[in-house]
Amino acid sequence: EFVARPVGVCSMLRLPVQTSAEGLDAAFVGVPLDTGTSNRPGARFGPQQIRAESVMVRRYNVSTGAAPFDSLLVADVGDVNVNLYNLPNSCRRIYESYQKIVASGCVPLTLGGDHTVTYPILQAVAEKHGPVGLVHVDAHTDTSDMALGEKIYHGTPFRRCVDEGLLDCSRVVQIGIRGSSYAPDPYKYCWDQGFRVVPAEECWMKSLVPLMEEVRQQMGDGPVYISFDIDGLDPAYAPGTGTPEIAGLTPMQALEIIRGCKGLNIVGCDLVEVAPIYDVSGNTALLGANLLFEMLCVLPG
Amino acid sequence: EFVARPVGVCSMLRLPVQTSAEGLDAAFVGVPLDTGTSNRPGARFGPQQIRAESVMVRRYNVSTGAAPFDSLLVADVGDVNVNLYNLPNSCRRIYESYQKIVASGCVPLTLGGDHTVTYPILQAVAEKHGPVGLVHVDAHTDTSDMALGEKIYHGTPFRRCVDEGLLDCSRVVQIGIRGSSYAPDPYKYCWDQGFRVVPAEECWMKSLVPLMEEVRQQMGDGPVYISFDIDGLDPAYAPGTGTPEIAGLTPMQALEIIRGCKGLNIVGCDLVEVAPIYDVSGNTALLGANLLFEMLCVLPG
Amino acid sequence: EFVARPVGVCSMLRLPVQTSAEGLDAAFVGVPLDTGTSNRPGARFGPQQIRAESVMVRRYNVSTGAAPFDSLLVADVGDVNVNLYNLPNSCRRIYESYQKIVASGCVPLTLGGDHTVTYPILQAVAEKHGPVGLVHVDAHTDTSDMALGEKIYHGTPFRRCVDEGLLDCSRVVQIGIRGSSYAPDPYKYCWDQGFRVVPAEECWMKSLVPLMEEVRQQMGDGPVYISFDIDGLDPAYAPGTGTPEIAGLTPMQALEIIRGCKGLNIVGCDLVEVAPIYDVSGNTALLGANLLFEMLCVLPG
Amino acid sequence: EFVARPVGVCSMLRLPVQTSAEGLDAAFVGVPLDTGTSNRPGARFGPQQIRAESVMVRRYNVSTGAAPFDSLLVADVGDVNVNLYNLPNSCRRIYESYQKIVASGCVPLTLGGDHTVTYPILQAVAEKHGPVGLVHVDAHTDTSDMALGEKIYHGTPFRRCVDEGLLDCSRVVQIGIRGSSYAPDPYKYCWDQGFRVVPAEECWMKSLVPLMEEVRQQMGDGPVYISFDIDGLDPAYAPGTGTPEIAGLTPMQALEIIRGCKGLNIVGCDLVEVAPIYDVSGNTALLGANLLFEMLCVLPG
Amino acid sequence: EFVARPVGVCSMLRLPVQTSAEGLDAAFVGVPLDTGTSNRPGARFGPQQIRAESVMVRRYNVSTGAAPFDSLLVADVGDVNVNLYNLPNSCRRIYESYQKIVASGCVPLTLGGDHTVTYPILQAVAEKHGPVGLVHVDAHTDTSDMALGEKIYHGTPFRRCVDEGLLDCSRVVQIGIRGSSYAPDPYKYCWDQGFRVVPAEECWMKSLVPLMEEVRQQMGDGPVYISFDIDGLDPAYAPGTGTPEIAGLTPMQALEIIRGCKGLNIVGCDLVEVAPIYDVSGNTALLGANLLFEMLCVLPG
Amino acid sequence: EFVARPVGVCSMLRLPVQTSAEGLDAAFVGVPLDTGTSNRPGARFGPQQIRAESVMVRRYNVSTGAAPFDSLLVADVGDVNVNLYNLPNSCRRIYESYQKIVASGCVPLTLGGDHTVTYPILQAVAEKHGPVGLVHVDAHTDTSDMALGEKIYHGTPFRRCVDEGLLDCSRVVQIGIRGSSYAPDPYKYCWDQGFRVVPAEECWMKSLVPLMEEVRQQMGDGPVYISFDIDGLDPAYAPGTGTPEIAGLTPMQALEIIRGCKGLNIVGCDLVEVAPIYDVSGNTALLGANLLFEMLCVLPG
Ligand SMILES: [Mn+2]
Ligand SMILES: [Mn+2]
Ligand SMILES: [Mn+2]
Ligand SMILES: [Mn+2]
Ligand SMILES: [Mn+2]
Ligand SMILES: [Mn+2]
Ligand SMILES: [Mn+2]
Ligand SMILES: [Mn+2]
Ligand SMILES: [Mn+2]
Ligand SMILES: [Mn+2]
Ligand SMILES: [Mn+2]
Ligand SMILES: [Mn+2]
Repeated sequence: EFVARPVGVCSMLRLPVQTSAEGLDAAFVGVPLDTGTSNRPGARFGPQQIRAESVMVRRYNVSTGAAPFDSLLVADVGDVNVNLYNLPNSCRRIYESYQKIVASGCVPLTLGGDHTVTYPILQAVAEKHGPVGLVHVDAHTDTSDMALGEKIYHGTPFRRCVDEGLLDCSRVVQIGIRGSSYAPDPYKYCWDQGFRVVPAEECWMKSLVPLMEEVRQQMGDGPVYISFDIDGLDPAYAPGTGTPEIAGLTPMQALEIIRGCKGLNIVGCDLVEVAPIYDVSGNTALLGANLLFEMLCVLPG
Repeated sequence: EFVARPVGVCSMLRLPVQTSAEGLDAAFVGVPLDTGTSNRPGARFGPQQIRAESVMVRRYNVSTGAAPFDSLLVADVGDVNVNLYNLPNSCRRIYESYQKIVASGCVPLTLGGDHTVTYPILQAVAEKHGPVGLVHVDAHTDTSDMALGEKIYHGTPFRRCVDEGLLDCSRVVQIGIRGSSYAPDPYKYCWDQGFRVVPAEECWMKSLVPLMEEVRQQMGDGPVYISFDIDGLDPAYAPGTGTPEIAGLTPMQALEIIRGCKGLNIVGCDLVEVAPIYDVSGNTALLGANLLFEMLCVLPG
Repeated sequence: EFVARPVGVCSMLRLPVQTSAEGLDAAFVGVPLDTGTSNRPGARFGPQQIRAESVMVRRYNVSTGAAPFDSLLVADVGDVNVNLYNLPNSCRRIYESYQKIVASGCVPLTLGGDHTVTYPILQAVAEKHGPVGLVHVDAHTDTSDMALGEKIYHGTPFRRCVDEGLLDCSRVVQIGIRGSSYAPDPYKYCWDQGFRVVPAEECWMKSLVPLMEEVRQQMGDGPVYISFDIDGLDPAYAPGTGTPEIAGLTPMQALEIIRGCKGLNIVGCDLVEVAPIYDVSGNTALLGANLLFEMLCVLPG
Repeated sequence: EFVARPVGVCSMLRLPVQTSAEGLDAAFVGVPLDTGTSNRPGARFGPQQIRAESVMVRRYNVSTGAAPFDSLLVADVGDVNVNLYNLPNSCRRIYESYQKIVASGCVPLTLGGDHTVTYPILQAVAEKHGPVGLVHVDAHTDTSDMALGEKIYHGTPFRRCVDEGLLDCSRVVQIGIRGSSYAPDPYKYCWDQGFRVVPAEECWMKSLVPLMEEVRQQMGDGPVYISFDIDGLDPAYAPGTGTPEIAGLTPMQALEIIRGCKGLNIVGCDLVEVAPIYDVSGNTALLGANLLFEMLCVLPG
Repeated sequence: EFVARPVGVCSMLRLPVQTSAEGLDAAFVGVPLDTGTSNRPGARFGPQQIRAESVMVRRYNVSTGAAPFDSLLVADVGDVNVNLYNLPNSCRRIYESYQKIVASGCVPLTLGGDHTVTYPILQAVAEKHGPVGLVHVDAHTDTSDMALGEKIYHGTPFRRCVDEGLLDCSRVVQIGIRGSSYAPDPYKYCWDQGFRVVPAEECWMKSLVPLMEEVRQQMGDGPVYISFDIDGLDPAYAPGTGTPEIAGLTPMQALEIIRGCKGLNIVGCDLVEVAPIYDVSGNTALLGANLLFEMLCVLPG
Repeated sequence: EFVARPVGVCSMLRLPVQTSAEGLDAAFVGVPLDTGTSNRPGARFGPQQIRAESVMVRRYNVSTGAAPFDSLLVADVGDVNVNLYNLPNSCRRIYESYQKIVASGCVPLTLGGDHTVTYPILQAVAEKHGPVGLVHVDAHTDTSDMALGEKIYHGTPFRRCVDEGLLDCSRVVQIGIRGSSYAPDPYKYCWDQGFRVVPAEECWMKSLVPLMEEVRQQMGDGPVYISFDIDGLDPAYAPGTGTPEIAGLTPMQALEIIRGCKGLNIVGCDLVEVAPIYDVSGNTALLGANLLFEMLCVLPG
């Protein structure tokens, strides 16, 4: 029976809520952590708001023809019980939760939370699948080494991943990078690792379909993880985020990127940095919900 | 284990979500309907936001010593699947849902929704328990007869209840009534039925403990329903509502009213008219969540 | 004399307010109805806010050279007195109001209200002019058949118009359509009727001037109605709406569409689905006011 | 016929809009000026928003039994066309407009605008009626002499009125005064003129009915003007204002003050300093609309 | 010369900004930390917003006659450079900063930040002055032992202070406590230490002048610290905070409490938990600025 | 040492605050004036909010390679003490302040304030450098002659500059102009002076790199002033402004324009019309901060 949009105890895409990912092909997971944020906090309420706005998303992807629920068993497995007062402990909690989720082959689709969460997620994912290729959309490379002596916060996850060998560095692409920087050569670290960096300037007023063809070549058949920081998009489209940068990507380009991942061997995805209080319309969260649905639509199988 | 406040797929007070009220002593029910609203709509998102803010409410009521979860089996039974485009049909849907909820003796605690919803709820409650006494907190008597020929909207529920004999009229009290009126004698109908009307003016700067002693006398041992329209409170405390009136009650008085119902034979409760978009802080919904918890704390048993 | 922007009891474009459209070439009409909305309500305050923000719009259209007030007698004829508690009855009220407005040849320019209102408006317009061609800008086709048994809400107006023969189906174009769908073949109904559907994807990063040349061919000399749902635009430009979809049209494209209608035999226009509370800056309403002014600028005569 | 709240091109209390006050007993007038504001601007949109929210106010005053429309001919005469770039010129424009309004005995009820506007209004009122008694509710005495050499802004109106002999100084009362001050003896000027100053502290947690009995004695039979700065109320009740001060009056006390003026020879009233953008709920404007209605209810006749 | 309110690079009360507290009688200090928050974050922007709104506060306290700048040398010494990713490290940074501030007898007035910050501040204060008496206004006792194994967050500061002997426990009073609790006996710990707990219920609709007379007795001549959590006040007055509880104190009572500390040997003060994004009017921050000014007004000397 | 973003008494880009521009190569200056605004006020808080959001901007401009702090001595010299109640007097105050700033060759970068402020700034700048070339980005030409007899407000600055010979009219370009107009020939005045007008329509969906090559030709070696009205951008990107117009420029184009000025002899810059209250996310101010940083990056030297 038809259900009105405001009806229901909210879960992602109105999916059933269950505590285990056992037997699932894919699972939405919330990680309500934002204590790794350098500027405006609030992404801890990202999972809640993305779930709430996901009532607008329906079964079928008209543009691509995808019907993910016809071929995949999917559920919402709730939130990781993070420790808001201790980032390393939260990372351990996330890692352990994801170990269980990925154990039986389930693909996790994460509702962040700030970008710190991708580090422990990739620990679990790489433990299962080996070093992964990475399609990373963001205004920032998130490859700082530390701040005030801290190795873990939302500016460092991919540095930590490199340190631990979680990434197949020649299969990493970072798209949408921009903004001023603390150092004169901010991409040096990335290039040294073999990452491809695609600054936002190279994307302005362009279709990214050709770029994604190259990305598919780069990724090959190996396992791939998609990490999508909503601040990769311009703040006009995603005002509800903690560290916005001007002159970013558009939602059309976001769709081109995600849809361009079709055919890859995707083993995990996340959508991070939605901080709802900075966009009380709910539209940033709605955008996040749609992008997560699009990720579901390009999963293998 | 401790769970951080932002963690969890939101249900009322973090209670388990289940589809049936069978075997429960009390059940929270959402009715996300607001198409009976005369001014600002938005109460359809009341249940969602009240659930979200209810993470602040803990197990024990320090002030009263109540520990409702020690004696009552309680759950969140989700939302009624309302028909947003047809008020009478929504009323039928609500009525049928509540018939099932009250069938086995479960006490429904409703998260509204606009005040229209109390009418079909009382149809089901009175069918089970006979005509009920009513403790009604509101800025408005909600006893209009019709508007543009319509008999059902949020200005008429208690008129309809009288029409159908659902109320034990000598055991009705309306507290907090105020505001300008369409007619010169707005309380005449209420008085004619035998209702007690306590205008807000009589409550100003006063403890309502003495009033509630009289109310307990008035209610006696018969079944009692509590209907709490958040606009009974002053808009300073509850800005997120559709038809606010100035110079209303305070949250302290709201607590005095609800706590003053302890000992009554309460067969149902509702908290209606929270329209979250008009208070993006979430505080009106938080107030609603607390008042519903206080209602739970005065249930018999 | 110059009048400061905040000065004046607000009417659309500071036009005189009158109760009858008799003798007018064109009339702005408000239809403050939003009870046909499936997700976020609030469009009932669209007419009020569009009028308020219209103080920014001046006499002359610099880009097109249009000076509508030099050739057309225009006024604001106020709002239809809708019935918020009964959608079919509201439709009847709208229909009867518009019968009078169009009777003497006046072209109605509607300030919605949700998209439900276009159905009764087209009843009156088609009664006067015969089946009309339609330039429909929207994220949604609005051709659902029903929800929970209801035939009338903002997802169905153009299905109802087809049912009643109000549209010249070969002269219908729907521009900006996108978003996920309940069915795998959402455009089938439209194509079966002979509608042209232009998905948003076909519009991305493109001028719509060539499209509009084709549309003018399609429309020919017959009567044409323009129905503009503000959610046809991307939520970045129009956050204040009830059912936003990501990756939509731009205001530049909106201008290209409306200006591209110059020369057509336009018999009515509407701008619907502005829900101001979701954009407290007023900018969504300002956009609506400008688009309505642009519609006025392409009226014949 | 019943008219739904969102319906109508907004005028104060849905009254007819007319350009002249000729023949009226009382007239609502907007003065959308805020360039006399020292802190947060925005009161220029006060008249617009107060009119919009006034749809909640109905014909009859239940609490007092007043039925002003039964005995008084009232209309909305629109806004004064202020000069936003020149305060003295705006004052002249206001003065000249009010000369016409009061000429035939009509009582003006002003929708401000910042408090600067009371000065030219009182020029016109005193010209007609002679020096007036003043019931002034405010957090501030508004009796500064100047700032940066300027004699006219919202901190000086009552000093200017004294300078010009517009006030009957022994019949002036200022209620709700509070907040820190630039000088150690901020009330000296007021006391030197013979004003009565009632600081907010003297009002805390008290009924003001006894105070108003004294005020009625003080005012006697002479002409009285009521000037109500919304910041006299606590910011909890009136957040939408430009220079809020903590620990203010309550709406109940506001009602006691205005209702306590019943029987006085009231020749004019204003409600100023509503700056709507600081309270997007609309509730500050709603409060202003109610207080203006209460003023109407105590007019003689 | 007069300075307009919007003018100036914001410092607290427009005081000079300096890096050292050397030679000062009192110093305002910002501690922009909020990673100890259990629910809504954002208090990291408390210092910024309190400074911005402090432009409304003037030199003289009219109500009490205090003229603090006549007798005290005061400055704004900026913010502690907190470590947002490591709470214990932030605590050490705060402690070390305050050691320097209090070294030469300067009284720190802290702009929080969440309540975690009071713990390291009291380490420095007690090191200088010995165990202190405490006037603690709050909805919460903040005496939890831990959450998820963490000993440091905004629910535990006063437990940690007791553990380390920083408080003279018989000279501790906690005012405004309320809300539901995780345990049935939430005040047991406080009572066991000898604290006085004054629940909000005991304050409702009452002047707190008599209470403060008792508090002054309790505090005697020893050093006293005032810790004011803005959530001690009702959310109507202070909506911009992270863990609001209904039915709290009023600003009048807040003034009675602080003014009632006049004559005590105050060695430090803080105003914590202002989270500005939840009150975009700025009024919660304005309230905080006023309360800090009132604290300055009761300092000895 | 690393400083967390929320830390610090806010100055532009965390630069030192000093009262004199003596010895500086460039200086940020705030002009918190908005009483020249025709529609929504609030730009008086532009300087405060731009400073607050500037914490996101770092030392190096990655895209252009600029490292302005390596070659230029820059500081924040605070705000001009404007007279909010007298526009001509404010203009004199601004003029006199800028005379001192530019005296020793310092380049002022202004944080507005409304566009009125550019007129007195250019008086000082032209007095120092002679008539200047102008790169003016705006939705409006700001060349009106007067309103209600007033010669000075935000619609007239460039007319006044022409009147006084402050502009080298053949070296003036206005980019982004759009919107309806009061007159049928709104660009006539500009063309008559020899200005180049580039309407927004000519910029739609295009890189402005070619345009800027022409602009550099036009500007030659003479002194150039950049005046950037944030409303030149589309309201999607800059909702926090007072007189928005639809279908404007993008931030990418803004960057192309400013970066395209590299090599010119820039003697002053401003960024005006940020009215923060209309964009509580802070993103409009963040955009302003970034554009000011980009201006700094193209200064000569
Ligand atoms: Mn990131
Ligand atoms: Mn990022
Ligand atoms: Mn009600
Ligand atoms: Mn009510
Ligand atoms: Mn539609
Ligand atoms: Mn639509
Ligand atoms: Mn005043
Ligand atoms: Mn005032
Ligand atoms: Mn606390
Ligand atoms: Mn607290
Ligand atoms: Mn301009
Ligand atoms: Mn402009």
